[in-house]
Amino acid sequence: MKVGVIGGGQLARMMIPEAIALGVELRVFAEAEGMSAENSTTVVGDYKSAEELGWFADGVDVITFDHEHVPLATLEQVERSGSSVQPSSSALQFAQNKLWMRKRLSDAGLPMPAWSEVRTSAELEKFMAENGGKVIVKTPVGGYDGKGVRVIDEPSGVDDWFAEIDKLGGSLLAEQLVDFDSEIAVLSARRASGEWRAWPAVETIQLNGVCSQVIAPAPNVDQQRALEIAERIATELSVTGVMAVEMFQTKDGQLLINELAMRPHNSGHFTIDASVTSQFEQHLRAVLDLPLGLTDMTSDVSVMVNLLGTEKGTDFLENFSDVMFRFPEAKIHTYGKSPRPGRKMGHITVVGDDLETVRSRALLAAAVISGS
Amino acid sequence: MKVGVIGGGQLARMMIPEAIALGVELRVFAEAEGMSAENSTTVVGDYKSAEELGWFADGVDVITFDHEHVPLATLEQVERSGSSVQPSSSALQFAQNKLWMRKRLSDAGLPMPAWSEVRTSAELEKFMAENGGKVIVKTPVGGYDGKGVRVIDEPSGVDDWFAEIDKLGGSLLAEQLVDFDSEIAVLSARRASGEWRAWPAVETIQLNGVCSQVIAPAPNVDQQRALEIAERIATELSVTGVMAVEMFQTKDGQLLINELAMRPHNSGHFTIDASVTSQFEQHLRAVLDLPLGLTDMTSDVSVMVNLLGTEKGTDFLENFSDVMFRFPEAKIHTYGKSPRPGRKMGHITVVGDDLETVRSRALLAAAVISGS
Repeated sequence: MKVGVIGGGQLARMMIPEAIALGVELRVFAEAEGMSAENSTTVVGDYKSAEELGWFADGVDVITFDHEHVPLATLEQVERSGSSVQPSSSALQFAQNKLWMRKRLSDAGLPMPAWSEVRTSAELEKFMAENGGKVIVKTPVGGYDGKGVRVIDEPSGVDDWFAEIDKLGGSLLAEQLVDFDSEIAVLSARRASGEWRAWPAVETIQLNGVCSQVIAPAPNVDQQRALEIAERIATELSVTGVMAVEMFQTKDGQLLINELAMRPHNSGHFTIDASVTSQFEQHLRAVLDLPLGLTDMTSDVSVMVNLLGTEKGTDFLENFSDVMFRFPEAKIHTYGKSPRPGRKMGHITVVGDDLETVRSRALLAAAVISGS
Repeated sequence: MKVGVIGGGQLARMMIPEAIALGVELRVFAEAEGMSAENSTTVVGDYKSAEELGWFADGVDVITFDHEHVPLATLEQVERSGSSVQPSSSALQFAQNKLWMRKRLSDAGLPMPAWSEVRTSAELEKFMAENGGKVIVKTPVGGYDGKGVRVIDEPSGVDDWFAEIDKLGGSLLAEQLVDFDSEIAVLSARRASGEWRAWPAVETIQLNGVCSQVIAPAPNVDQQRALEIAERIATELSVTGVMAVEMFQTKDGQLLINELAMRPHNSGHFTIDASVTSQFEQHLRAVLDLPLGLTDMTSDVSVMVNLLGTEKGTDFLENFSDVMFRFPEAKIHTYGKSPRPGRKMGHITVVGDDLETVRSRALLAAAVISGS
């Protein structure tokens, strides 16, 4: 069993341990030398080249992803040549293009913030007037971790995007600014033959548009409703592999779909240390169309805290003695990246039975390893 | 932080995931191409060569082990050249040479079966007469998984060993055949600066001299007493890294030391799926003299079952669909070895809260994946 992963980042890196345990041969197509998944990198190349991806695909049983940046036309070409791509381009298009996602999920009657496709500043102005004057505008393709996303209270706030609107696909996505109570994510996995399993919905806490903490399970959410939404999406779009559905929970308890990711996701890192089956093992099983593992948590609660690069470029290894001495329960995960401010460098997970204790321990451990 | 592991077997293989998580660079010195730890193998060479080991040691911060077969003189030479070897040759000698171990632990007053160093058939006969006529004889060096160990009721049963007694070091180890109630193992780790942590003592069930099942924690044992013995040994011998102490529990509840291994051990594989810190992560921390992780179990009970190669040479991958479908809770670990009858090919761990359920599920899952 050979799985090829396009992208050499931390998501590919965290598939390696699971591949080793299962005896799956993992091959990584990385975009550069010395990336996070270096240990299993077999090709360094250009993921925009259908030719290079085609060669890579020929050597494995299935192609899957560490990121969502492979151009759709390139993937379709790889699929036409007979390779198995999981998730397929027909599902992945809705994770790549936020506008297509909104249209497709609207057709399916799924709950979302008010949204509109806007082609001109005038159209945007109209949407803003109807939605409280302050809205979110997104480029349909290419945004992540807050990039390609702006909160504006004047249409002129995205004049530069309208100026190059043809490059951006001809239109932008405008969305209602949801006055949410909390942000929720549901991680689940589906395999081609239809089996679907989800982990408990989690609460995610963002800082400057980047995931900062994940609390599992989410303390205040209708778990059944959250999982129903995720299952509807997975089934409607025939998603294979792990999918993250990010949702807003409004003050009156509604759940509105925010974003989709069709791959292992930051909000699911807790599963490595707090679930019978991690999202990385589950992703390998799902893309190989093998039966899925149990998604029960192995502890009452877990808190994951992202470790971001700091201005002073702290190397976590310097602080290992301190953090390990003070927090023998902390699970440390590093991504083998050189430090850069704001960059996701690793994460720490703490599990236990009391949320406040677990959370304060996780936050303190993250502060100690970051040298702050 | 660079850790060099001598030996490319499954113990080195299972260090890889933990090294990736911590960001430790793991380099493996394997005895052949294509071994279990192939993913991190950087050198294939002869571990009996002090020159080759010296080159390898120069590139890492610390040398440790997947097996105990490196000649002591070779290790001492590597140490004299300034490399850090953990555990050191002064500790490891007692894991390599069973006779030295018996002498050293007798001096420390630790509980063991009756034993004697025998140089001649007459000496052996005398020991047998004093110990019920049926005894165990071991070659001091080189035995494992039942090799180099014989149960005899006539001194002539080891005549071939006496015939080449000079090659075997000049003497054999004769031991009382303990009428035990159960076999127990204590896994623990110690680092150079003295910190020591143990996992709960486990019960091991052997079949034909090879470990077959491990029940954690051991259901009927004086945990405190078992851990005290392990701590005494680790401290007395200045062991660093993970150590397994195998013990007999007699029908009257005594614990008698059987064997020592100064490395991660089959009896500790349950820690990957059932403890906050696995024995492989702990070993890396310990040999790097980093603070040790918490050894609490994350479930009430766990049962690990070894997967041995069968006569028909079953490839576990063929049975993945069956076993994963029927046992979504089973944690499957494969070692990437070609099948050979009796060979340790992998293991399965199941956790839960009821021992009988967990045990029957683990045994069934192992039978299904083995195609029996």
